[in-house]
Amino acid sequence: MSPDHGNQGICPRYHRAVELIGRRWSGAIVRVLLDGPQRFSGILQQVAGLTDRLLSERLKELEAEGVVARRVYPETPVRIEYSLTEKGRDLERVVREIHRWADRWVPKPAHASR
Amino acid sequence: MSPDHGNQGICPRYHRAVELIGRRWSGAIVRVLLDGPQRFSGILQQVAGLTDRLLSERLKELEAEGVVARRVYPETPVRIEYSLTEKGRDLERVVREIHRWADRWVPKPAHASR
Repeated sequence: MSPDHGNQGICPRYHRAVELIGRRWSGAIVRVLLDGPQRFSGILQQVAGLTDRLLSERLKELEAEGVVARRVYPETPVRIEYSLTEKGRDLERVVREIHRWADRWVPKPAHASR
Repeated sequence: MSPDHGNQGICPRYHRAVELIGRRWSGAIVRVLLDGPQRFSGILQQVAGLTDRLLSERLKELEAEGVVARRVYPETPVRIEYSLTEKGRDLERVVREIHRWADRWVPKPAHASR
Protein backbone atom coordinates (compact mmCIF):
# COMPACT_ATOMS: atom_id res chain seq x y z
CA MET A 1 0.00 0.00 0.00
CA SER A 2 2.79 2.39 0.83
CA PRO A 3 5.92 2.16 -1.27
CA ASP A 4 8.28 2.44 1.67
CA HIS A 5 7.62 -0.89 3.25
CA GLY A 6 8.50 -4.09 1.52
CA ASN A 7 8.15 -7.65 2.67
CA GLN A 8 9.98 -6.58 5.80
CA GLY A 9 6.68 -5.89 7.50
CA ILE A 10 4.69 -2.81 8.16
CA CYS A 11 6.17 0.63 7.94
CA PRO A 12 7.50 1.74 11.33
CA ARG A 13 6.48 5.35 10.65
CA TYR A 14 2.87 4.27 10.12
CA HIS A 15 3.07 2.32 13.34
CA ARG A 16 4.32 5.36 15.24
CA ALA A 17 1.64 7.59 13.73
CA VAL A 18 -1.26 5.27 14.48
CA GLU A 19 -0.15 4.85 18.05
CA LEU A 20 0.29 8.60 18.49
CA ILE A 21 -3.22 9.45 17.38
CA GLY A 22 -4.67 6.38 19.02
CA ARG A 23 -3.11 6.76 22.44
CA ARG A 24 -5.91 6.97 24.96
CA TRP A 25 -7.61 10.41 24.66
CA SER A 26 -5.16 11.84 22.10
CA GLY A 27 -7.59 11.42 19.21
CA ALA A 28 -10.28 13.17 21.19
CA ILE A 29 -8.01 16.08 22.16
CA VAL A 30 -6.87 16.59 18.55
CA ARG A 31 -10.51 16.49 17.46
CA VAL A 32 -11.43 19.28 19.90
CA LEU A 33 -8.47 21.46 18.89
CA LEU A 34 -9.38 21.18 15.19
CA ASP A 35 -12.23 23.57 16.03
CA GLY A 36 -9.72 26.16 17.27
CA PRO A 37 -7.48 27.03 20.22
CA GLN A 38 -8.76 26.11 23.65
CA ARG A 39 -7.88 26.56 27.26
CA PHE A 40 -7.24 23.54 29.41
CA SER A 41 -10.70 23.76 30.96
CA GLY A 42 -12.32 24.12 27.54
CA ILE A 43 -10.83 20.84 26.34
CA LEU A 44 -11.76 19.11 29.56
CA GLN A 45 -15.36 20.22 29.16
CA GLN A 46 -15.69 18.72 25.72
CA VAL A 47 -14.21 15.30 26.38
CA ALA A 48 -16.42 13.23 28.66
CA GLY A 49 -14.45 11.05 31.04
CA LEU A 50 -11.12 12.81 30.63
CA THR A 51 -9.43 13.76 33.92
CA ASP A 52 -7.19 16.75 34.71
CA ARG A 53 -4.19 14.52 35.21
CA LEU A 54 -4.60 12.63 31.93
CA LEU A 55 -5.27 15.76 29.92
CA SER A 56 -2.15 17.37 31.30
CA GLU A 57 -0.11 14.26 30.47
CA ARG A 58 -1.48 13.99 26.93
CA LEU A 59 -0.96 17.69 26.20
CA LYS A 60 2.68 17.39 27.24
CA GLU A 61 3.14 14.39 24.95
CA LEU A 62 1.40 16.07 22.03
CA GLU A 63 3.54 19.17 22.59
CA ALA A 64 6.69 17.04 22.63
CA GLU A 65 5.55 15.42 19.35
CA GLY A 66 5.09 18.84 17.77
CA VAL A 67 1.35 18.32 17.30
CA VAL A 68 0.14 20.84 19.88
CA ALA A 69 1.50 24.31 20.75
CA ARG A 70 1.06 25.93 24.14
CA ARG A 71 0.83 29.69 24.23
CA VAL A 72 0.92 31.83 27.35
CA TYR A 73 -0.73 35.25 27.27
CA PRO A 74 0.74 37.52 29.96
CA GLU A 75 -2.58 38.84 31.22
CA THR A 76 -3.92 38.97 34.74
CA PRO A 77 -4.80 36.25 35.42
CA VAL A 78 -2.45 34.62 32.95
CA ARG A 79 -4.20 32.90 30.03
CA ILE A 80 -2.86 29.71 28.51
CA GLU A 81 -4.15 28.35 25.24
CA TYR A 82 -3.50 25.16 23.36
CA SER A 83 -3.69 24.93 19.60
CA LEU A 84 -2.66 22.59 16.81
CA THR A 85 0.58 23.16 14.93
CA GLU A 86 0.70 22.67 11.16
CA LYS A 87 1.59 19.03 11.83
CA GLY A 88 -1.42 18.78 14.11
CA ARG A 89 -3.83 20.44 11.70
CA ASP A 90 -2.71 18.03 9.02
CA LEU A 91 -4.37 15.28 11.07
CA GLU A 92 -7.74 16.67 9.99
CA ARG A 93 -7.96 14.25 7.08
CA VAL A 94 -7.23 11.32 9.39
CA VAL A 95 -9.86 12.53 11.85
CA ARG A 96 -12.38 12.99 9.03
CA GLU A 97 -11.88 9.42 7.80
CA ILE A 98 -12.26 8.04 11.31
CA HIS A 99 -15.51 10.02 11.65
CA ARG A 100 -16.77 8.64 8.39
CA TRP A 101 -15.96 5.10 9.49
CA ALA A 102 -17.53 5.62 12.91
CA ASP A 103 -20.72 7.05 11.39
CA ARG A 104 -21.03 3.96 9.29
CA TRP A 105 -19.96 1.24 11.67
CA VAL A 106 -20.11 2.24 15.31
CA PRO A 107 -23.63 1.89 16.70
CA LYS A 108 -25.24 4.98 18.18
CA PRO A 109 -25.29 4.89 21.97
CA ALA A 110 -28.65 3.69 23.28
CA HIS A 111 -29.19 6.81 25.38
CA ALA A 112 -29.20 10.30 23.87
CA SER A 113 -26.59 11.78 26.22
CA ARG A 114 -22.94 10.98 26.00
CA MET B 1 -16.97 18.92 11.53
CA SER B 2 -19.41 16.10 11.97
CA PRO B 3 -23.07 17.01 12.18
CA ASP B 4 -23.81 14.60 14.98
CA HIS B 5 -21.96 16.34 17.74
CA GLY B 6 -23.03 19.71 18.97
CA ASN B 7 -21.63 21.82 21.77
CA GLN B 8 -21.99 18.76 23.95
CA GLY B 9 -18.45 17.77 23.16
CA ILE B 10 -16.91 15.31 20.80
CA CYS B 11 -18.89 12.51 19.26
CA PRO B 12 -18.66 9.35 21.37
CA ARG B 13 -18.70 7.17 18.25
CA TYR B 14 -15.61 8.93 16.92
CA HIS B 15 -13.98 8.46 20.31
CA ARG B 16 -14.73 4.73 20.25
CA ALA B 17 -13.43 4.37 16.70
CA VAL B 18 -10.17 6.20 17.27
CA GLU B 19 -9.44 4.15 20.37
CA LEU B 20 -10.26 0.92 18.56
CA ILE B 21 -7.84 1.54 15.72
CA GLY B 22 -5.31 3.16 18.02
CA ARG B 23 -5.19 0.50 20.68
CA ARG B 24 -1.63 -0.73 20.93
CA TRP B 25 -0.87 -2.93 17.86
CA SER B 26 -4.40 -2.89 16.43
CA GLY B 27 -3.52 -0.38 13.72
CA ALA B 28 -0.55 -2.50 12.72
CA ILE B 29 -2.58 -5.71 12.60
CA VAL B 30 -5.30 -4.12 10.46
CA ARG B 31 -2.60 -2.76 8.18
CA VAL B 32 -1.15 -6.25 7.63
CA LEU B 33 -4.56 -7.81 6.98
CA LEU B 34 -5.40 -5.19 4.35
CA ASP B 35 -2.94 -7.07 2.14
CA GLY B 36 -5.01 -10.25 2.49
CA PRO B 37 -5.77 -13.11 4.90
CA GLN B 38 -2.94 -14.27 7.11
CA ARG B 39 -2.15 -16.96 9.58
CA PHE B 40 -1.23 -16.05 13.11
CA SER B 41 2.47 -16.58 12.41
CA GLY B 42 2.28 -14.50 9.26
CA ILE B 43 0.99 -11.49 11.14
CA LEU B 44 3.56 -11.94 13.88
CA GLN B 45 6.33 -11.96 11.29
CA GLN B 46 5.30 -8.64 9.83
CA VAL B 47 4.89 -6.65 13.01
CA ALA B 48 8.19 -6.08 14.76
CA GLY B 49 7.92 -6.15 18.53
CA LEU B 50 4.52 -7.85 18.70
CA THR B 51 4.38 -10.86 21.01
CA ASP B 52 2.28 -14.04 20.74
CA ARG B 53 0.26 -13.12 23.77
CA LEU B 54 -0.55 -9.60 22.61
CA LEU B 55 -1.41 -10.68 19.08
CA SER B 56 -3.78 -13.29 20.41
CA GLU B 57 -5.42 -10.72 22.70
CA ARG B 58 -5.79 -8.14 19.95
CA LEU B 59 -7.20 -10.62 17.45
CA LYS B 60 -9.86 -11.63 19.97
CA GLU B 61 -10.79 -7.98 20.51
CA LEU B 62 -10.88 -7.22 16.80
CA GLU B 63 -13.01 -10.31 16.24
CA ALA B 64 -15.40 -9.22 19.01
CA GLU B 65 -15.62 -5.78 17.36
CA GLY B 66 -16.49 -7.38 14.03
CA VAL B 67 -13.36 -6.08 12.33
CA VAL B 68 -11.55 -9.40 11.93
CA ALA B 69 -12.92 -12.82 10.99
CA ARG B 70 -11.28 -16.08 11.99
CA ARG B 71 -11.67 -19.01 9.66
CA VAL B 72 -10.72 -22.58 10.41
CA TYR B 73 -9.86 -24.90 7.52
CA PRO B 74 -10.31 -28.55 8.51
CA GLU B 75 -7.07 -29.76 7.01
CA THR B 76 -4.31 -31.77 8.59
CA PRO B 77 -2.79 -29.96 10.33
CA VAL B 78 -5.67 -27.59 10.80
CA ARG B 79 -5.18 -24.20 9.16
CA ILE B 80 -6.50 -21.03 10.74
CA GLU B 81 -6.63 -17.75 8.87
CA TYR B 82 -7.52 -14.25 9.89
CA SER B 83 -9.02 -11.75 7.50
CA LEU B 84 -10.78 -8.41 7.58
CA THR B 85 -14.57 -8.26 7.49
CA GLU B 86 -16.30 -5.58 5.40
CA LYS B 87 -16.17 -3.33 8.46
CA GLY B 88 -12.44 -4.00 8.72
CA ARG B 89 -11.72 -3.42 5.04
CA ASP B 90 -13.51 -0.11 5.28
CA LEU B 91 -10.67 1.04 7.54
CA GLU B 92 -8.46 1.21 4.47
CA ARG B 93 -9.18 4.89 3.96
CA VAL B 94 -8.27 5.62 7.57
CA VAL B 95 -5.06 3.62 7.23
CA ARG B 96 -4.22 5.41 3.98
CA GLU B 97 -4.61 8.84 5.58
CA ILE B 98 -2.45 7.84 8.53
CA HIS B 99 0.21 6.64 6.07
CA ARG B 100 0.06 9.91 4.22
CA TRP B 101 0.45 11.85 7.46
CA ALA B 102 3.30 9.62 8.65
CA ASP B 103 5.14 9.97 5.34
CA ARG B 104 4.98 13.69 5.71
CA TRP B 105 5.59 14.17 9.42
CA VAL B 106 7.20 11.20 11.09
CA PRO B 107 10.98 11.20 10.60
CA LYS B 108 12.53 8.18 8.96
CA PRO B 109 14.31 5.92 11.42
CA ALA B 110 18.05 6.58 11.48
CA HIS B 111 18.90 2.97 10.60
CA ALA B 112 17.59 1.29 7.46
CA SER B 113 16.10 -1.76 9.19
CA ARG B 114 12.88 -1.66 11.07
